[in-house]
Amino acid sequence: MDRDQCLALDANDPLRAFKDEFVLPEGVVYLVGNSLGALPRRTAERVRQTVEDEWGSQLVGGWNHAGWYAQPLTAGDRLAPLIGAGPGQVVVGNTTSIAVFQAVAAALRLRPDRRVIVSDVRNFPTDHYMVQGLAGLLGGYEVRDFAQGRFDDAAVVLLSEVDYRTGARHDVPSVTARVHEAGALMVWDVCHSVGAMDVDVSGADFAVGCTYKYLNAGPGAPAFLYVNPRHHAAAENVLSGWHGHAEPFAFETGYRPAEGVRRFAVGTPHVLSFAALEAALDVWERVPMDQVRAKSMALTSLFVDLVGDALQLVSPADAAARGSQVSFRHPHGYPVMRALIDRGVHGDFRAPDVLRFGFAPLYIGYADVYDAAATLLEVLDKELWRDERYATRLAVT
Amino acid sequence: MDRDQCLALDANDPLRAFKDEFVLPEGVVYLVGNSLGALPRRTAERVRQTVEDEWGSQLVGGWNHAGWYAQPLTAGDRLAPLIGAGPGQVVVGNTTSIAVFQAVAAALRLRPDRRVIVSDVRNFPTDHYMVQGLAGLLGGYEVRDFAQGRFDDAAVVLLSEVDYRTGARHDVPSVTARVHEAGALMVWDVCHSVGAMDVDVSGADFAVGCTYKYLNAGPGAPAFLYVNPRHHAAAENVLSGWHGHAEPFAFETGYRPAEGVRRFAVGTPHVLSFAALEAALDVWERVPMDQVRAKSMALTSLFVDLVGDALQLVSPADAAARGSQVSFRHPHGYPVMRALIDRGVHGDFRAPDVLRFGFAPLYIGYADVYDAAATLLEVLDKELWRDERYATRLAVT
Repeated sequence: MDRDQCLALDANDPLRAFKDEFVLPEGVVYLVGNSLGALPRRTAERVRQTVEDEWGSQLVGGWNHAGWYAQPLTAGDRLAPLIGAGPGQVVVGNTTSIAVFQAVAAALRLRPDRRVIVSDVRNFPTDHYMVQGLAGLLGGYEVRDFAQGRFDDAAVVLLSEVDYRTGARHDVPSVTARVHEAGALMVWDVCHSVGAMDVDVSGADFAVGCTYKYLNAGPGAPAFLYVNPRHHAAAENVLSGWHGHAEPFAFETGYRPAEGVRRFAVGTPHVLSFAALEAALDVWERVPMDQVRAKSMALTSLFVDLVGDALQLVSPADAAARGSQVSFRHPHGYPVMRALIDRGVHGDFRAPDVLRFGFAPLYIGYADVYDAAATLLEVLDKELWRDERYATRLAVT
Repeated sequence: MDRDQCLALDANDPLRAFKDEFVLPEGVVYLVGNSLGALPRRTAERVRQTVEDEWGSQLVGGWNHAGWYAQPLTAGDRLAPLIGAGPGQVVVGNTTSIAVFQAVAAALRLRPDRRVIVSDVRNFPTDHYMVQGLAGLLGGYEVRDFAQGRFDDAAVVLLSEVDYRTGARHDVPSVTARVHEAGALMVWDVCHSVGAMDVDVSGADFAVGCTYKYLNAGPGAPAFLYVNPRHHAAAENVLSGWHGHAEPFAFETGYRPAEGVRRFAVGTPHVLSFAALEAALDVWERVPMDQVRAKSMALTSLFVDLVGDALQLVSPADAAARGSQVSFRHPHGYPVMRALIDRGVHGDFRAPDVLRFGFAPLYIGYADVYDAAATLLEVLDKELWRDERYATRLAVT
């Protein structure tokens, strides 16, 4: 595959027009959309409207007239199709960490007879940390690693569809079936899959995810929580804030949960962050997800092929078995990545030695992949990473 | 006091120049700054910078280069003087509801020998709801009303400095001393006082508050959590997310809390909402708080005097015993408030029968108070609230 062939693939790409909907700096191949998605062109104006036309003009009236109050549910309904859910099943707000706590705590209360929480030590750390915090708070719970494969005494299993480090993908239906057969509840974290493939958590009990990666809703955009309708009546939100109350503005002294998924709302929604999410969802409404997955697999395969034996592949070699990212191992991974970024190819580094490259099919093309691989091969071949400027660690890697 | 005298007071007001720093709709007297503060003029540009110049240009690099990663602490340090705290004692993020949960849970773990949580049933509901959720999750705890006045077996006392409904103000030092004498820990909620008076929670164990009321950081702006340095080593964040980890980007499998108040950070900060907070803090850095409190007391007293016997005062008659709001009771409070808003005087209604008027000294003047009182008296005198348009309840009151 040469660069001209890649340009030909770009010219025939049915998703090609979406690239123009994003702001991408000149001279950069941005392969970190799996960490922070790029800025949609429409977002700046949508956020400006919220600040100036809504807050500035309507002031507190914006809670009614600009729809702020309803946002956790209206945004949830718009997002639901991306995870195989229906209306009234997803609430948006807070962070993934908080949503993990809510989902796992709710699952424990639905299975009070069991005292084991299964979590994956290779999970994105915050999921595992939140479970540790919850178990420590409650006392009497065992936190067991998913790799042990024993669920028959577990109350709940928490797992990421796509591993943040390796990009390895779990099969959601089969894992969910195994967990349910063992009598446990299933909580999926879809942070690293939503927006990169057809996600379907409708068989699970709960799911959590963030909107700032492939969904492009901006730094610190709100997270989401899916609750299967079969649990809507019984599931409890232990973070029982006023926005999950049946009548928040009745100012009752006792907590009384709202009907449906709304009970999992907590405090006042971060309205400016919701504005950027809404702009991102305006794009997603027009995206054919089957084409996203097809292109994603083609892009990651192309990158794997082009890099070849120059680096040790950490991700599954089979495109169907991974998400939209490719990870390699290198003993000097940190300076290698800094050297790459210095040359306009943006990936990221995950301790201790992993180079990650995420391929967001809406704005990454085949020629981008070609150029990124060429630059990576040059950095490795000429050992350009040995420059001492690349040794200094930044706060966020 | 006539309108000319009010105009003379405005002309001599040392805070008068601040009004020009806010966007206020023409023809509106906005007395809801105690619910959602007005938009500072500088905010739109600051948010635009974050969206376009930071996210759009730096992409994921913004976590390092635009300071996003450090924001929970840098914003906390800027906010600290407003609550009598020092650097490294305040972390910003999440919502007040979440911060209440963190503070009360941490307090319980610092006093494991006691099983009583004291909370005020008249507190803003979410505080009390979060305590109920936490107590329900843990089991074995009594939630006792503050009015019972018994703390000698309490682990923690949670109280608002200013009552959201009546505006009545507790004396922070004397209540804190009583609680500490009884061997309990003290958590203050300063949502309804911060930015309206000199707040000083430095004697307390924890404090929580929001930034979207008098601080003017916008709808759903992040909350804050103060932790007294004497607890920094021992206090546990039960919502143990990765941003509170000692090394978030080491991606360790075990949670290891950061030193200091940073351990109370949870998930990824809502960066767009932080941008608006930073713009608001740019204003507060120049505000003399003693003049804010003096003007606040003068404004609330003027309003009470002008309304006179036309309505039943719910707030304390002594300005020193209340916050920066005045509340009245009226059996038809809801349509009265709707009629007022229709005439450009914005207050709010709190069930079942309370009319609230908040006076933000940075952008409310004496003539504004005069005009608001005159309109209120007209609405009552002519029974303008009987118009059927004012009967329909909106979602947010």
